[in-house]
Amino acid sequence: MQTQILERMESEVRTYSRSFPVVFTKAQGARLTAEDGKQYIDFLAGAGTLNYGHNNPKIKQALLDYLASDGIVHGLDMWTEAKRDYLEALEEVILKPRGLDYKVHLPGPTGTNAVEAAIRLARVATGRHNIISFTNGFHGVTMGALATTGNRKFREATGGIPTQGAAFLPFDGYMGEAVDTLDYFEKLLGDNSSGLDLPAAVIVETVQGEGGINPAGLDWLKRLEKICREHQILLIVDDIQAGCGRTGKFFSFEHAGITPDIVTNSKSLSGYGLPFAHVLMRPELDKWKPGQYNGTFRGFSLAMVTAAAALRTYWSDDKLERDVQRKGRIVAERFQQLADYLGEKGITASERGRGLMRALDVGSGERADKITAEAFQRGLVIETSGHDGQAVKCLCPLTIGDEDLLEALDILEASVKAVF
Amino acid sequence: MQTQILERMESEVRTYSRSFPVVFTKAQGARLTAEDGKQYIDFLAGAGTLNYGHNNPKIKQALLDYLASDGIVHGLDMWTEAKRDYLEALEEVILKPRGLDYKVHLPGPTGTNAVEAAIRLARVATGRHNIISFTNGFHGVTMGALATTGNRKFREATGGIPTQGAAFLPFDGYMGEAVDTLDYFEKLLGDNSSGLDLPAAVIVETVQGEGGINPAGLDWLKRLEKICREHQILLIVDDIQAGCGRTGKFFSFEHAGITPDIVTNSKSLSGYGLPFAHVLMRPELDKWKPGQYNGTFRGFSLAMVTAAAALRTYWSDDKLERDVQRKGRIVAERFQQLADYLGEKGITASERGRGLMRALDVGSGERADKITAEAFQRGLVIETSGHDGQAVKCLCPLTIGDEDLLEALDILEASVKAVF
Amino acid sequence: MQTQILERMESEVRTYSRSFPVVFTKAQGARLTAEDGKQYIDFLAGAGTLNYGHNNPKIKQALLDYLASDGIVHGLDMWTEAKRDYLEALEEVILKPRGLDYKVHLPGPTGTNAVEAAIRLARVATGRHNIISFTNGFHGVTMGALATTGNRKFREATGGIPTQGAAFLPFDGYMGEAVDTLDYFEKLLGDNSSGLDLPAAVIVETVQGEGGINPAGLDWLKRLEKICREHQILLIVDDIQAGCGRTGKFFSFEHAGITPDIVTNSKSLSGYGLPFAHVLMRPELDKWKPGQYNGTFRGFSLAMVTAAAALRTYWSDDKLERDVQRKGRIVAERFQQLADYLGEKGITASERGRGLMRALDVGSGERADKITAEAFQRGLVIETSGHDGQAVKCLCPLTIGDEDLLEALDILEASVKAVF
Amino acid sequence: MQTQILERMESEVRTYSRSFPVVFTKAQGARLTAEDGKQYIDFLAGAGTLNYGHNNPKIKQALLDYLASDGIVHGLDMWTEAKRDYLEALEEVILKPRGLDYKVHLPGPTGTNAVEAAIRLARVATGRHNIISFTNGFHGVTMGALATTGNRKFREATGGIPTQGAAFLPFDGYMGEAVDTLDYFEKLLGDNSSGLDLPAAVIVETVQGEGGINPAGLDWLKRLEKICREHQILLIVDDIQAGCGRTGKFFSFEHAGITPDIVTNSKSLSGYGLPFAHVLMRPELDKWKPGQYNGTFRGFSLAMVTAAAALRTYWSDDKLERDVQRKGRIVAERFQQLADYLGEKGITASERGRGLMRALDVGSGERADKITAEAFQRGLVIETSGHDGQAVKCLCPLTIGDEDLLEALDILEASVKAVF
Repeated sequence: MQTQILERMESEVRTYSRSFPVVFTKAQGARLTAEDGKQYIDFLAGAGTLNYGHNNPKIKQALLDYLASDGIVHGLDMWTEAKRDYLEALEEVILKPRGLDYKVHLPGPTGTNAVEAAIRLARVATGRHNIISFTNGFHGVTMGALATTGNRKFREATGGIPTQGAAFLPFDGYMGEAVDTLDYFEKLLGDNSSGLDLPAAVIVETVQGEGGINPAGLDWLKRLEKICREHQILLIVDDIQAGCGRTGKFFSFEHAGITPDIVTNSKSLSGYGLPFAHVLMRPELDKWKPGQYNGTFRGFSLAMVTAAAALRTYWSDDKLERDVQRKGRIVAERFQQLADYLGEKGITASERGRGLMRALDVGSGERADKITAEAFQRGLVIETSGHDGQAVKCLCPLTIGDEDLLEALDILEASVKAVF
Repeated sequence: MQTQILERMESEVRTYSRSFPVVFTKAQGARLTAEDGKQYIDFLAGAGTLNYGHNNPKIKQALLDYLASDGIVHGLDMWTEAKRDYLEALEEVILKPRGLDYKVHLPGPTGTNAVEAAIRLARVATGRHNIISFTNGFHGVTMGALATTGNRKFREATGGIPTQGAAFLPFDGYMGEAVDTLDYFEKLLGDNSSGLDLPAAVIVETVQGEGGINPAGLDWLKRLEKICREHQILLIVDDIQAGCGRTGKFFSFEHAGITPDIVTNSKSLSGYGLPFAHVLMRPELDKWKPGQYNGTFRGFSLAMVTAAAALRTYWSDDKLERDVQRKGRIVAERFQQLADYLGEKGITASERGRGLMRALDVGSGERADKITAEAFQRGLVIETSGHDGQAVKCLCPLTIGDEDLLEALDILEASVKAVF
Repeated sequence: MQTQILERMESEVRTYSRSFPVVFTKAQGARLTAEDGKQYIDFLAGAGTLNYGHNNPKIKQALLDYLASDGIVHGLDMWTEAKRDYLEALEEVILKPRGLDYKVHLPGPTGTNAVEAAIRLARVATGRHNIISFTNGFHGVTMGALATTGNRKFREATGGIPTQGAAFLPFDGYMGEAVDTLDYFEKLLGDNSSGLDLPAAVIVETVQGEGGINPAGLDWLKRLEKICREHQILLIVDDIQAGCGRTGKFFSFEHAGITPDIVTNSKSLSGYGLPFAHVLMRPELDKWKPGQYNGTFRGFSLAMVTAAAALRTYWSDDKLERDVQRKGRIVAERFQQLADYLGEKGITASERGRGLMRALDVGSGERADKITAEAFQRGLVIETSGHDGQAVKCLCPLTIGDEDLLEALDILEASVKAVF
Repeated sequence: MQTQILERMESEVRTYSRSFPVVFTKAQGARLTAEDGKQYIDFLAGAGTLNYGHNNPKIKQALLDYLASDGIVHGLDMWTEAKRDYLEALEEVILKPRGLDYKVHLPGPTGTNAVEAAIRLARVATGRHNIISFTNGFHGVTMGALATTGNRKFREATGGIPTQGAAFLPFDGYMGEAVDTLDYFEKLLGDNSSGLDLPAAVIVETVQGEGGINPAGLDWLKRLEKICREHQILLIVDDIQAGCGRTGKFFSFEHAGITPDIVTNSKSLSGYGLPFAHVLMRPELDKWKPGQYNGTFRGFSLAMVTAAAALRTYWSDDKLERDVQRKGRIVAERFQQLADYLGEKGITASERGRGLMRALDVGSGERADKITAEAFQRGLVIETSGHDGQAVKCLCPLTIGDEDLLEALDILEASVKAVF
């Protein structure tokens, strides 16, 4: 395995190649193959970008056909067949059946770009500047988005410039079971000297991804929506990681029966790992003037092609939804067993999540790292998240076959038992 | 032509579909085809993203091969064959022959992301916060990059939040021929109460793109480099639009014989219109700690595949360079003739640029819009830039055939003469 | 009473002249005299600036003597007899007996200036930027201090610019009796993705003044000090309103037995209503370089003369302390009776405070305003505070005679009973 | 001379006591007396705070009378006789005769507070955030004002936080005689991608004080006013140092025949060295809501008493104006002779200024320090200013007697000749 040039030329900022120091060459479905031919089951799946697996054949065909036809690959934000088809698929397959009426903003093809566009729109539309984010929230690292991202690792790498325009509040459950953290939010809102500038918007992940797979309670989300409505605060659901079916519904907020004012999607939106993002917004919020937010790769055509294929293939009926829920229960059960096993060994552990966005929390990053390192040796790519990296995380493809799923869970079990 | 859904669902922020209100379906080389079969020669080329033309066959083959082999499409920043191959091509074809020693940071696949990473690194590496940008500079619209972008259109769409951490200075020529604007910069630096915080970095386009195709003088650039060295200021060349051969050299700064500390590339870097960006930095500046700057689509594999193919195809010898310079002279000559023609009609006009990054400045956006609208009717996609949109802009594919080039210039000439 | 010129020429920003629309001409001790000869007992006392009463004769004599001698009135921060004498009095009468070792910074003569200097020093000394403030905290309105002040009234009058460099946490009791708000602070500190940038300092009022006379529990303050020590966070006690004896000790933090790293004093520090402020800091924190923080009126000589006289007159023994505590009990008892009375009338009311910094909370600003308006008619100047103005506030001179005190309390009682 | 306690207890931030390391005890007119009895002529005069000299007997009497009568010393912003009398004097003696119609805001009693209030009002009144300041401008050090202050010494002492909401432009003459720096301002304003956010206001000193006694040309000021009017930019003249007669007119902008929208005064406004400041504004700009900007010492009564006395004593006729102009010519002539002398010694030097705000620029701070140190030994307190401290500065009392003036100039001459 030739890695010298990779080690020499790539910036020290690189991270996953440190956890998985092999050169990957091929991938199919839930499996990655390294240069030496060794296969790995992928429980990371591009941090939630590959919900339909690697190189999904149905989506691939659409991509190859489009390329073969010399369709428009890059056209800034001009009108293309690909864009029209994407909007049609989005409306017919996703929005209409859910009774959602949104306009679509196609910013640069990354999640952070969608978040920047969303919070800027919220400011323009409300005339307020403050954005509420939550403890352990992650919404990207460009400066506007970073203001809403909780991780010190990123926040301290600004060269000392404080972020501005956002304030953090405790996420659901953050202060223990006895405290409804929205009581605190409501008190701050109603208090003229609380220090909380009246917010333009709240940005929330219904299940926090990088923060440790923390699902907000459905009642908490409903109450959050209600508070926002009462105070003319826009509700932004950042569904970049939890969306596109990861929790067992296309939008993660469907579980709670709420309707955000603004939604951001990216990661699995293209369905094939291609960079893509959009912002959905209630039509009356579309206060953008032509060209006020731009970017060279806004509306990436190939991604719109694969996204339309993915939507039509997987979301025209409820098969995938039900399958995700079923597999989610399998993972939950196995994680719970591992938590119980660890409990017997004197290690406090627990499982949590929604759909196939699940975590086995082993209480410390040190422990979690031991488990994931062992798992990698045994053929499973799996990562940690959470403020201390304490949560071993299942983000496997939603389309993973049962055989692969069970093999992966077996590897994880063996790894836990080998280590503790 | 069915455009209702496009008009109904896409945000009002859309812009190019207003100038070119047709649905494009196919493209090849320098030609776009609309749904009604009408062909257009493309003098916009993705705002400089399609230097090798639409669906360039040599690059396309590499992409199709990679897709066929089920190579890794998305792997966060793991090691892949595609990344290794890209780094090898970059080193062998580009850096070594030019005597450049840079490390590579692969941030999110957009220009603004590369700029955010570059200026943040400059702050971390120097312990200073101030970034110098220039009048009419454009470096992206996420909040960190926006601080260095001059356009009020974007700056006023932040919802009232002032950008922070940057200061603007006059670009070369901004104060007329009699003033060397770097005299002002040097005076500010040497003056302890000038109001200029000692800069971490200067970020500069050697030929300003969105600002109106303004080439900085080569001596001015040399002096800028010298001033930076003397004051421990990092020199960042934002080569997102002017790089990848646009000016007749791979890096636009080669003309001036300077060596930036940090370089940003994007747009044509992938060679096929795929989202991609990198930051090059002197190795000793690589102060990043693992994972301090992240993003889901950092190091987009398909783009690395096409980028490597583009580099090897077009930059292993100096053919393209010479061809760009030759065609640049043709465009310059024709633009000068048009400027002369307009002068005879009493309209002050001029041509300027470097390589195939050229403008015909007609003095007002109103005039320029009339010309480009007429040209579109006649089959030429061409746009304006500059603070008032006063510069009709040639950003055609570098690989455009002479026939297409001359036809496009004929259309432009006819358009100018039809309008004035 | 001639008020036209006052109404015509003074900015609409004026506020107390709206509550008390008479022209005051003279004052002595706890009594103000208006132009028409009517006398008022002063329970506002310059919002805590006149702890020793109006025109206190002992302090006045020192001032007159100094003026008569043509001592230095204004000398920037040059050395003067007045400054030396002030530092001697401060050290001998206040610091040494309390075992405190502080250096003294004499910034501009206002509280907000002292706060700006304190938080800037904390940033310079720690290399961190974040300042923790608390809900309902008030620390001044210049932009640096405003970041730590909770009132929307001021925060919304910045012309839309967000303040920066501070974060708000819940003050003691803010989330109800069941929640120790410092649990939340500790959790945020220990959580790497909480969104809380590691603080340079905490700034706290031990009894919040403008926020509604909210005393922090003494155990809460002790724990706050402990948390700060454990995380290398500087503890700033803003003792501008609660200091100088107001709570029954010279420094309000003496009750809790804590030792702040930095202390700000102003308001009653001069003892005569003259503008004056200082910042006390542990000697090792004095990281200022010469002249890094300046201001024309730093170290106002006349104020240092009166301050030294006030310290020597009132703080050489514990008489005043004991007297304040005694009178505080009287006020507390009478306020409690009024709360009980209101309770019987179906109005939830309560009393709270420390020493002679006390409030009768009547639940709403509307009610409180009725009471204070009535009291003014009956000869008592008294104001409200709190986020809704719901707290009728006793800030009478500490030196008020028992007769005046009781008469004022009688007026207040009559006013309450007249209104409800 | 006992200085231990001063050296031990006062923060290292102290500065003037380093240049003049004696303890001053008394002062009268233009003369300071140190503890050892040595007298010094005062060419610093509180950095322009003592325009009427130390302990001016006419003003002193008003102060003593008010103190004797037990007038209100501190009343927040309540109505007092002192305030009414001050407003009357201001209107009758100053505003009416000059045809000026301003409302008065009495913020905290310091210059920086007045600047904070002025720029905040400009933002509120215009809905824009950007404030234009000029190279070498000084407007105070609290965070809001600091954004407009050019000195790195202060700007670098924020603990790394960048200031926000202001941009610097070159002051008159900054780019040499050939460049009218307002051409640059106008170009930036008219250019939509210049990077200059449309300003709420320009803040300018007509003669820069701390920046080195730099007088703006009168035509430049007129053009600046015109540009502001044309672009709906408010013109703020910061007349804190140059106002109150220092330049030979009460307001320094009278020379140019311009009418600022907002004026700040402080320093000599009280006439006796007492902390005091006001903001004057065109009545229609008074967008303050009650209480939106506050501060404990706003409208300091004693200062209003002395200020009224000073205005009536010195500004009821034009005697002082003419006298300042006459003495200014004397100083100018002597400074020019010194500049010529230095020129003969091969040292490039020059004189500049307006009225009694004058500088002898000796080209470097090192040289200037030698001269002022020598002068201090010989009995003259005189300081330097400018970005390098290169300008030996005359800010003597306007009321200085000719004998003292000439003696001081003789000392300065002897000092220059002793050193060079």
